Amino acid sequence: MLRVGVIGYGYWGPNLVRNFTEASNACVTWVADPRAERLALVASRYPSVKTTLDPDELVCSPEVDAVVIATPVATHCDLALRALASGKHVLVEKPLAHSTEAGRRIVDEAARRGLTLMVDHTFPYTGAVRKIKQLVDEGRLGDFYYYDSVRVNLGLFQRDVSVVWDLAVHDLAILEYLLPQKPLAVSATGVNHVSGQYENIAYLTLFYPDSAIAHVHVNWLAPVKLRQTLIGGSKNMIVYDDLQPAEKVKVYDKGVTMETDPASIYELRVGYRAGDMWAPKIDGREALRLLAEHFVRCVQGTEEPLTGGEAGLRVVQTMEAATRSMAMRGTVVDLNQERSGE
Amino acid sequence: MLRVGVIGYGYWGPNLVRNFTEASNACVTWVADPRAERLALVASRYPSVKTTLDPDELVCSPEVDAVVIATPVATHCDLALRALASGKHVLVEKPLAHSTEAGRRIVDEAARRGLTLMVDHTFPYTGAVRKIKQLVDEGRLGDFYYYDSVRVNLGLFQRDVSVVWDLAVHDLAILEYLLPQKPLAVSATGVNHVSGQYENIAYLTLFYPDSAIAHVHVNWLAPVKLRQTLIGGSKNMIVYDDLQPAEKVKVYDKGVTMETDPASIYELRVGYRAGDMWAPKIDGREALRLLAEHFVRCVQGTEEPLTGGEAGLRVVQTMEAATRSMAMRGTVVDLNQERSGE
Amino acid sequence: MLRVGVIGYGYWGPNLVRNFTEASNACVTWVADPRAERLALVASRYPSVKTTLDPDELVCSPEVDAVVIATPVATHCDLALRALASGKHVLVEKPLAHSTEAGRRIVDEAARRGLTLMVDHTFPYTGAVRKIKQLVDEGRLGDFYYYDSVRVNLGLFQRDVSVVWDLAVHDLAILEYLLPQKPLAVSATGVNHVSGQYENIAYLTLFYPDSAIAHVHVNWLAPVKLRQTLIGGSKNMIVYDDLQPAEKVKVYDKGVTMETDPASIYELRVGYRAGDMWAPKIDGREALRLLAEHFVRCVQGTEEPLTGGEAGLRVVQTMEAATRSMAMRGTVVDLNQERSGE
Amino acid sequence: MLRVGVIGYGYWGPNLVRNFTEASNACVTWVADPRAERLALVASRYPSVKTTLDPDELVCSPEVDAVVIATPVATHCDLALRALASGKHVLVEKPLAHSTEAGRRIVDEAARRGLTLMVDHTFPYTGAVRKIKQLVDEGRLGDFYYYDSVRVNLGLFQRDVSVVWDLAVHDLAILEYLLPQKPLAVSATGVNHVSGQYENIAYLTLFYPDSAIAHVHVNWLAPVKLRQTLIGGSKNMIVYDDLQPAEKVKVYDKGVTMETDPASIYELRVGYRAGDMWAPKIDGREALRLLAEHFVRCVQGTEEPLTGGEAGLRVVQTMEAATRSMAMRGTVVDLNQERSGE
Repeated sequence: MLRVGVIGYGYWGPNLVRNFTEASNACVTWVADPRAERLALVASRYPSVKTTLDPDELVCSPEVDAVVIATPVATHCDLALRALASGKHVLVEKPLAHSTEAGRRIVDEAARRGLTLMVDHTFPYTGAVRKIKQLVDEGRLGDFYYYDSVRVNLGLFQRDVSVVWDLAVHDLAILEYLLPQKPLAVSATGVNHVSGQYENIAYLTLFYPDSAIAHVHVNWLAPVKLRQTLIGGSKNMIVYDDLQPAEKVKVYDKGVTMETDPASIYELRVGYRAGDMWAPKIDGREALRLLAEHFVRCVQGTEEPLTGGEAGLRVVQTMEAATRSMAMRGTVVDLNQERSGE
Repeated sequence: MLRVGVIGYGYWGPNLVRNFTEASNACVTWVADPRAERLALVASRYPSVKTTLDPDELVCSPEVDAVVIATPVATHCDLALRALASGKHVLVEKPLAHSTEAGRRIVDEAARRGLTLMVDHTFPYTGAVRKIKQLVDEGRLGDFYYYDSVRVNLGLFQRDVSVVWDLAVHDLAILEYLLPQKPLAVSATGVNHVSGQYENIAYLTLFYPDSAIAHVHVNWLAPVKLRQTLIGGSKNMIVYDDLQPAEKVKVYDKGVTMETDPASIYELRVGYRAGDMWAPKIDGREALRLLAEHFVRCVQGTEEPLTGGEAGLRVVQTMEAATRSMAMRGTVVDLNQERSGE
Repeated sequence: MLRVGVIGYGYWGPNLVRNFTEASNACVTWVADPRAERLALVASRYPSVKTTLDPDELVCSPEVDAVVIATPVATHCDLALRALASGKHVLVEKPLAHSTEAGRRIVDEAARRGLTLMVDHTFPYTGAVRKIKQLVDEGRLGDFYYYDSVRVNLGLFQRDVSVVWDLAVHDLAILEYLLPQKPLAVSATGVNHVSGQYENIAYLTLFYPDSAIAHVHVNWLAPVKLRQTLIGGSKNMIVYDDLQPAEKVKVYDKGVTMETDPASIYELRVGYRAGDMWAPKIDGREALRLLAEHFVRCVQGTEEPLTGGEAGLRVVQTMEAATRSMAMRGTVVDLNQERSGE
Repeated sequence: MLRVGVIGYGYWGPNLVRNFTEASNACVTWVADPRAERLALVASRYPSVKTTLDPDELVCSPEVDAVVIATPVATHCDLALRALASGKHVLVEKPLAHSTEAGRRIVDEAARRGLTLMVDHTFPYTGAVRKIKQLVDEGRLGDFYYYDSVRVNLGLFQRDVSVVWDLAVHDLAILEYLLPQKPLAVSATGVNHVSGQYENIAYLTLFYPDSAIAHVHVNWLAPVKLRQTLIGGSKNMIVYDDLQPAEKVKVYDKGVTMETDPASIYELRVGYRAGDMWAPKIDGREALRLLAEHFVRCVQGTEEPLTGGEAGLRVVQTMEAATRSMAMRGTVVDLNQERSGE
C-alpha cells in the first residue's frame, strides 16, 4: 500500500486525491494546502486524511511514501527537491518545472537518489491517445509526416504563464509519448491581447528529422472550444477530436501516390488514395486513475514511467525554447543546442 | 456591352466564361487555350464564341475590350502586360503574379495607361465574407485581435508553386479585403513530404499593428477537408466555416473582461463574457458572378475595384516574404522593408 | 428549513439527495432503500443523514416534512399515498404512477389533504426548455404547428416498462409544460426486438387542436445517441439539440408564405421565408437544483407547482393511451374519452 | 444504341436527358414538353435533339426505342400506356403512378407486351444505398430489426400530392430494394398546416414479419434539412446520413446481449455490446447515370430491372394505404389485403 501525500488542493488536486484514494494499492494519508478552507473541504470529504497548511510537515511525515505536487508551476522545483531529499517518490503535475534548469535539478536529484519521478502528463493515459500510440507502434501510419493540433477555447488567463505553458504542454506531452523521434528545433509566434498578461494566443512549429513537422495552435480567447488534431503518415492519417463523445479517433486510409501525368502541361499529378475510415473503440476509463495506478507500479519497480522526468524535462525545454522564439517573432531555436548548452 | 476575351480554359476558365456570359452588360467573344480539345469544348458549349490557340490573336482582337487571364501563374505577368499594351482592361486569376517584381510591373503598366486592373480574389465576393466585412465595418467586432484560418484537404499538389500560393492566397486576399490595417511582418514554416515538390504544408503568422495577429494554416495532405476561420475582436468573435451548407457565419457575443480577484493567489482572473450567438442570413449568389459584374462596372468607371492591382500586389508580396521565411524556418520577414526595398 | 426524506437510492436518488442537500431552505434528514449497501453509501457520503431499510420508518418520522419518492414506478402510488396519509408533502420521480387510476388516487389524496404534490419532470427545469417556454409565451413561434422529437440511444432495457415510459415521458412532460393546449388523441406504434421484453422502439403521434401535431420517436436500440427536437410555428421554428455542449436552442426565422404562381401548371408555390438564425444563451444551472428549490417554495406556499400532480397525471394518461394504441398497431385513442371515462 | 425520348423537361427531366446523353449505348432523340420555353432550352443545349409540344409525336416516332416519362404523377399512367402501346420500353419517374389501380395497368400492359418497364427510384443507384445493400446481402446486419428515416426540410409544397408521395417514396423505394421481406401493414399519421393543401408532415410505420419495423418521417416545413437513417440489426447497426459529404454510411459494431443479473431487483440487464465503427468508402458516381445505363442493359436483355414495375407498384400500394391510414388518424391498413383485394 503506497501512502500518498498531496500538496495543493486547488483545481487539479481534488482529482489527484480522488484517484489515488480509489487506486489499487494506494491511499492518501496527507493533504497540504496554504488555504484553510480548502483543507476543511478535504476533511469533510475524507475524514481519515490528515491536513496541514505546511507542506514540510507532509514532506517529512513517516506516513508518506510518495508526494504528489499539484501547486503553481513556479513552486514545483523547490517542493520536488524537498520531497526527494526526504526520500519520497514524486509525481509532479504538468509541467515538470518552470525552467529547463529547474527541471534538470529535479531529474538529477531523483536519479541520484534512485527515487521514482513522474510527471502528470495526463493525455498519454487517455484511451484515445493510447489507441493512437498503438497504431503508431504497429506501423499503421507509415512514415510520420505531421502532427497538427488546434486547442482553443475561451479559457482562464493564467497569471504566471502564457498559453503555451497551459495548453501547448498537452500536445508536447502527447508528441513526447507518441513518437520515438524528438524535435530538433522550434519556431513560435504569439501575442497577448490583454495588457500586462502573458501571450494568450500562440503557434508553435516543431521541426523533426526527415521533414516531419508538428504544429500546435493554442488560444485562450476563442469563441468556441476546439480540440482537433490531424496526424499524417505515409500510409494512413488520423483525426483525433477529443470533444467527440464517441469516435474520438478516426483512421483514414488516405494518402497520396505519385502519378506521372505527361498529358498535363500544368501540373504533375500527385494521385489521391482514398479508402475506408475506421473509428476504433476507445477505452473510456479515467486517465488519471490509470496514471495513479501506473505510478504505484513504477514505485514498486514493476513498471517504467511512461511519463518520467526526462520526458517532462524535454517538454519544458521545448516550451522554454518556444518562449524565446516567440520573443523573436518566430526565429527558430535549435533544441539540440539547448540541450548541449546545459 | 463589355466584350471579354478569356485566356485559359482549364480548371477555372470555364467558370469565368460562364459567369461573364451570364453577367449583365458583358459577353465573351474570344477564348484562347493552347489545347485544341479545350477549344473544342468551348465551341460545343458556346457556338458563337471564337477560339484560338494563340493568345496574341485574342489580345489584339478589336472584338475584345477586356482580357481575363486564367493561366498558370508564371504566365500572368507576360500576358497581362501584352493585354495592357493592346489597350485592354485586365482581370487576372489569383494570384496576380509569381513575384512582387512581376506584380509591380503589371500594376504600374495599368496605372500608366489608365486601364482597369483587377485580381480574381474570389472570396471577397462570397456572401459570407461580405457579411463579415459588413460586421467589421460597422464596428461589431470592436478592436481586431486575430484572424485564424485552417484551410486543409487532400488536394492537388501543384507542380509550380507551394501550398502557400494555392491555398494561403485565399486567406491573404480575405484579410486584404476585411481589414484597413496591413501586415507588418510575416513568419512562416512549412515542409514538403513528397520528394522534389514544393511545400505541401505551411503555417503563416502575420503581425499587424497593436498586437493583432493573423495565422493561416494550409495543407494539401489532410485526411479531411476543413475551412474554418476564427476571428477575434474585443466586442464579438466570429466563426466562419465555409463548408457549412447553412450558417456559414456565426457571431458570438463572447469575450473577456478584467476582474481583479484579490482572493486568488494563483491567478488573476480575466472574466468571461458569454452571450447569444447569431448566424445572419448569407446571400447565396455565386461569388464569381458578382465579381464579373463588378469588373464590368469598374471598367465603365462607376465603381472602384474591391480587389484591384495594389491589393493583389500586397498579397503577392506577403506570399513571397512567407516563402523566404519558410526557407529560414520561421525567421520573421518585415513587410515594410519589402516594400521600401523595391 | 424543509426536512426531506428520500425513498430510493438507486440511479436517480443520489442526484435528488445531493440537490436537496445543497438547496436553500432544505435539508435531507432520512434516506430509505431496501439494499443495505446503498444505505452504507449514504452514510459514508452524508454522515448526519439517518438511513433505514423500511420506508414506513421514514414516512412516519416527525423529522420529515416532505417525502421524495425515487423508486420503481410500480411502487409510486402506494408510497405516495402512505406519505400523504402521514401528512407529508410529496415529490415523485417521473412518471407519477404506473396507471391513470393510480395517478388519480395520488392527485385526489393530495388535494383532499391540501398537501403539495409535485412530479420530478426534470426537463422543464433545464435552461434550454425554459428558454423555449419563454419564446412560446412571448408569441415568437406564432401558431404552434408541430413538435417533433427523436430521443434514441443504446439504452438500458427496463424490465417493468416499455421505452415509452422511460424516454417518451420526457417529451410528454416537455409538451405539458410548453403548451397551453392539451392533446386530443394519440396514435402509437412500436415493437420489441428482445423476446419477452416490453417495446424497445416506439413512435407516438399526438393530435392537438387546429391541426397541430406532436411526434415522439424513442428507441433503446440505436447505435448513436440523438436528442433532437424540431418545433415548428407559423412565425419561427426551433431546433433543440440537448447534446450540443453549447447552442442547444436555435431559433430560425424560417417559414412559408403563400404565393400564387399562375405561370406554373405543375405546382402552387408555397413561398420560402428564410432569415437569420439565433442561438440564445442558455442558463447552465443544474435543472434538479432548480426543481428542488421550487418544490421548497411550493411547500412554503409562495409558488405554484410547474410540474404538479395534474400535469403528471395527464402524462400518465397519454402513455397509457399510447400503450393501448401500440397494442392495436396505431389505432387512435381519444384522450378526452379517456378522461371522461374515469 | 438505344434511342430515348424524354417527356417532361421540368425539374427532373434535364437530369434524365443529360444522363441518357452521356450514357453508353444510348442517345436522346426527342424531348416533349407542353411549354415552348422549355423546348427552346433543350434546343440550345442539345441542337441535334428534336422537340415537340405533343407527347404523342414522340411516342409514335420511329426514332424512339424507349420513352422516359418525367411529368406530374397524375399523367404517368396514360403516357406509359400510350408508349407501351407503341411498342416502346418505358422508364417512369417515381412514383410509378398515382394509384395502385393505375400502376397495375402499367405493369400488366408491359408484361403482356414483353417490354421493359422500370421506375426511376434513384436512391438504390447511389453509392451509399448500394453499399448498404451489399452489407445486408452479406448478412452483416444479422436479423433485420428496424429502418428509421428522418427526411425533412423546408421544401416545395406540391399542389397535387402530399409529402408522402414526394419524400416518403424515397424511403419506400430504398426499403423495397434493400430487404427481401415486404411490409405487411402500415399505420400513418399526418396533417397539413397550410389551408387547402395536402399533408406537409407525415409519419409512416411499416410492419414487417418477425417484429421488424420501418418508420418514415417526412416534413416539408422543417427549419433544417435532415436526411438521417438508422438501420438496426442483431449484429450491426448502420447510420446513413446522405448530407455528409464524406462518410455517408457508418457501420457500428453495436447491439445488445441478454445478461441475467439476479442481483438487480429493478431491472433485467440487457447487456451492451459496443465495438468499432467503420465507414466504408462510397462510390461517388452519379446515381442517375448508373440507372440510365442499367435501363439500357435491361432493354438489351442482359440485366433484370432492380427497380422494375412490380417494385414501383408495391411502393404505390404502400403510399395509397398510408394515405388511407392518415385519413383514419393511424388506423392500421393491411397491405396483404390491399393486394388480395385487387
